[in-house]
Amino acid sequence: MKITLLTVGKTTFGFAAQGEELYQKRLQFYTQFRRVDIPQLKNAASLSREEIKVKEGDLILKALKPDDDVILLDERGNEYSSIDWAASLERKMLSSGKDIVFVVGGAYGFSQAVYQRANSKLSLSKMTFSHQIVRFIFLEQLYRAFTIIKGEPYHHQ
Amino acid sequence: MKITLLTVGKTTFGFAAQGEELYQKRLQFYTQFRRVDIPQLKNAASLSREEIKVKEGDLILKALKPDDDVILLDERGNEYSSIDWAASLERKMLSSGKDIVFVVGGAYGFSQAVYQRANSKLSLSKMTFSHQIVRFIFLEQLYRAFTIIKGEPYHHQ
Repeated sequence: MKITLLTVGKTTFGFAAQGEELYQKRLQFYTQFRRVDIPQLKNAASLSREEIKVKEGDLILKALKPDDDVILLDERGNEYSSIDWAASLERKMLSSGKDIVFVVGGAYGFSQAVYQRANSKLSLSKMTFSHQIVRFIFLEQLYRAFTIIKGEPYHHQ
Repeated sequence: MKITLLTVGKTTFGFAAQGEELYQKRLQFYTQFRRVDIPQLKNAASLSREEIKVKEGDLILKALKPDDDVILLDERGNEYSSIDWAASLERKMLSSGKDIVFVVGGAYGFSQAVYQRANSKLSLSKMTFSHQIVRFIFLEQLYRAFTIIKGEPYHHQ
């Protein structure tokens, strides 16, 4: 079972990219982790927000395999404590055997087609985080989940 | 009215410190923002978690003025959307006139004495974020709140 983080557009803030790298390196010790960045649309400036969402959505859908378990990072998704989320991730890994793909959208969010394809939605917060920094916030949380699953002392109650 | 972010211990991750700097610089355009870091305890390795919390708590309490509006960043606090939090911040600024101090604790959280002094608690997420990165997640959120209050186009619905 592989875990993929699929994102739209590059991380342009240097500090955020460094944070991503730190947690991605740590994740390699725990799981087959893969990162896929869909390139930013080239003509975005000439498109409406809705058109950007649809075009980015098409690229997201193309990057998915039919049996991937697709989880969108979305403010309207389910919220969990770190402990509960680690438990839910562990259950998935033990039962379904499907590859899991977490998707972080672009600045304007997901198209309807992406919402329809998704198997579930995860919310990191009721607050909106910059799509530049949400990626490594998520990566830290994924790393934290594995340390919880393995009973390692990173997470303090 | 001033806004202070009071934290325990330095940010040791370079990328996180860069993120903090970015949002602190941006905040200067909107408000009188001040950052206060309480130094890490020197003998922490010889202390229990409870002792660390109590000692850090004493230092936090010393750094507060009697009439500060003290808001702890705490997983068990109130959660808001970015829009609702901006509105609540704006109401505070218009009505109370008190200086607001947001406090991020150390790795083991707050002592009982700090909980007793606090006026309210704010939760950024049900999940636990590293105390190294929670600071700049909060700073981005504070910056976002000011752009929302001013009607600026940083925040997309």
